[in-house]
Amino acid sequence: MSESPSLRPVSDIDTVACIGAGVIGGGWVAYFLARGYRVRAWDPGAGAEDRLRRLIGAAWPALTELGLAPGASPDAWEMVPTVAEAVEGVGFVQESAPEDLELKRTLLAELAAATADDVVIASSTSGYPMSDMATSAADPSRLVVGHPFNPPYLIPLVEVVGGKGTEDWAVSRAAEFYRHIGKSVIQMDQELPGFIANRLQEAIWREALHMVAEGEATVEQIDLSITDGPGLRWPVHGPCLTFHLAGGEGGMAHMLDHFGPSLKSPWTRLEAPELTERLRDDMVAGAHASAGGRDMATLVAERDRAIIAVTRAVAAARGRTDG
Amino acid sequence: MSESPSLRPVSDIDTVACIGAGVIGGGWVAYFLARGYRVRAWDPGAGAEDRLRRLIGAAWPALTELGLAPGASPDAWEMVPTVAEAVEGVGFVQESAPEDLELKRTLLAELAAATADDVVIASSTSGYPMSDMATSAADPSRLVVGHPFNPPYLIPLVEVVGGKGTEDWAVSRAAEFYRHIGKSVIQMDQELPGFIANRLQEAIWREALHMVAEGEATVEQIDLSITDGPGLRWPVHGPCLTFHLAGGEGGMAHMLDHFGPSLKSPWTRLEAPELTERLRDDMVAGAHASAGGRDMATLVAERDRAIIAVTRAVAAARGRTDG
Repeated sequence: MSESPSLRPVSDIDTVACIGAGVIGGGWVAYFLARGYRVRAWDPGAGAEDRLRRLIGAAWPALTELGLAPGASPDAWEMVPTVAEAVEGVGFVQESAPEDLELKRTLLAELAAATADDVVIASSTSGYPMSDMATSAADPSRLVVGHPFNPPYLIPLVEVVGGKGTEDWAVSRAAEFYRHIGKSVIQMDQELPGFIANRLQEAIWREALHMVAEGEATVEQIDLSITDGPGLRWPVHGPCLTFHLAGGEGGMAHMLDHFGPSLKSPWTRLEAPELTERLRDDMVAGAHASAGGRDMATLVAERDRAIIAVTRAVAAARGRTDG
Repeated sequence: MSESPSLRPVSDIDTVACIGAGVIGGGWVAYFLARGYRVRAWDPGAGAEDRLRRLIGAAWPALTELGLAPGASPDAWEMVPTVAEAVEGVGFVQESAPEDLELKRTLLAELAAATADDVVIASSTSGYPMSDMATSAADPSRLVVGHPFNPPYLIPLVEVVGGKGTEDWAVSRAAEFYRHIGKSVIQMDQELPGFIANRLQEAIWREALHMVAEGEATVEQIDLSITDGPGLRWPVHGPCLTFHLAGGEGGMAHMLDHFGPSLKSPWTRLEAPELTERLRDDMVAGAHASAGGRDMATLVAERDRAIIAVTRAVAAARGRTDG
C-alpha cells in the first residue's frame, strides 16, 4: 500500500465532475448543485445538454422543498466537450457512464490518469465489482464504487466499496464525502457483484420476470402486491426487522423456528440456504442489533405510525383525495 | 360445479369468526372490530386471550386515527372454547392457525363441516395452495385463501385465490367482502405457492440469508440498504414501474435493452429467466398498463413528491427531529 496523499478536508471540495449525465449521472448533477457545488459534466450523447437541463429543472422543485445549501444554483454547471476539461481542478469525480464493462474500463483508466493524486473517482455502476472495472487503469488506487439509487437527488443510500487495487484511504474518503453531502452510506469491506441492495432488488426483479414469463401474474398485480403490501413496511424497518416483528413477542427467533420449514417450499425460484444453528443465531443477533435497543412494543408502535403516515403520504403524492 | 347458494349481501354480515389469534389472527380481530364487526375468536394457546387483548390495545390507537366504523368497539369480541362455538351464526370465517399443513387440513375440514353453505372460510396461510390444504374437507367448495400482511389491521393487501375444489362464487365473495371492509384485493386465477407478494418477499429474504450465511453483509446493512434505498420507492410505484422510471425517457423498453445483459450477471443466487422478445414485450406493455396513462414526467413528479413525503413520514414516526 502506498502512502495516502496529503488530503484537503472534504469540506474544501467545491467542484465535482460528473462523467455521464443520463438518468443517474444527471441526478447526481442535480444533487451536487443543490448542495452548493459547481459541476462540470461530460456526456457525448446527442442532446445530452438539453436532457440534463430538463432533468435538473424537473428535480429542482423537490430539491428546493428539501432545502438548498447556501448559494446553491440550478445553473452552476457546464457541459464540456472533453473528459480532461471536465476533471480539471475538481475535488471529486462521479462516473455514471452506461453499464458497459469495456466502456467503464476505458473511461476509468482515462479518469485515473487525468486527475490529481488526491481526487477520488467514484463509479455509479449498478453492479460491476471495481476489480473488474479497474483492469485498464495504470493506477487503480483512487477508483471506488459509489453506487446510488434512482433518483440520486432523493434516495439517500450510496454503497461504497473498493477493488483489489483501491487504497483504503480512497474508500474512506468517498464515504466521508458522501456523508458530508448528506448521503446515507454503506461502506462494504468486500466486493460483491450487485453490492447489497441491488442483489435484493434483483432477486425481486428476477422472480417478477419469472412470474410474467410463466403467465402466473401480471405486471400490474406484481406492482400492486408491493405498493399495497410489503412496500409499505420497508421504508421503516427493512426486510430483517420486518420479519423480527412478524415473530410477535418471540421476534426473529420465533419467526425462524416457525417459518423455517417454509424455506424448503417452492415460494420463489431462488433456493434457500441451509438454516444452520449458526445462521439462525446470526439472524437473531442481527435483528437485535438492527432494533438497537427498541423493544418489540416500541417497534410495533413505530411501524404502525410509519405505515399510516407512509400510506397518507403516497396517497397525497398520487393526487388522490383519500390522503 | 354446484349451484351457488342464495347469498346474503356481504353488507349484511355482522359477525366474523377468527380461528387462531396470534400476530396475524389477532391483527384480523383488531381490523374487523375497527370496521364495526363483532368477532368470535378461538385460540387454544396458553394465554391467548390476554395476548389478544394486548394486541387489540396496541392496535387501537392506529385504527382510531384511521377512522373507526360507526359503533366499532375494541371490546366487541369474545374468546370461545370450541371451534363450533366460534363459527355459530357468523357470516365469514378467517383462519389464521400456525403454518402447519396437517393442522390446517384438519382445521379447515372441521370449519367446512361446521358452517352454513353460504359462509366463506378464508385462510391466512402464508403460502400453501388451497388445493393442498383442502384435502381433508368433505366439501372444499367454500375454502379460499385470503392472505393478509402483517399487520393485517394496517396493510391493505389481501391475496385471494381458490383451490381445485373451491367454487368460483366463494372466491368472488371473499374478494367482495374484503373490498367491502376496505382492503386492497388481488384476485388470482391460478394457484401459486407463496402467491405473488410472498414470492417476491421470499426472494429478498433468501438472498439476505445467503449474504449473512456467507459473511458478505450484516443484518443491519441489509436493512439499511432497503430503508434508505429502494424501500423508499416501493410504496409508490412497485418494482416494475420503478424500473420503468429507471429507463428514463425510454422507460421499460430502454431499461430492458440496456440492463438486459445484467440478467446474466451473478447479482443474486436466483437465476434469471431468458429475456425473450415476448417477455420483453409483455414487460413493456405491462409497465404502460401499470402507468395507466400517466406520462413519464407525471410519474417522476409523483415519485419525487412521494419519496419526500415518505422520508419525512418515516423520520417522524421514528421520533427523529429531522422529519
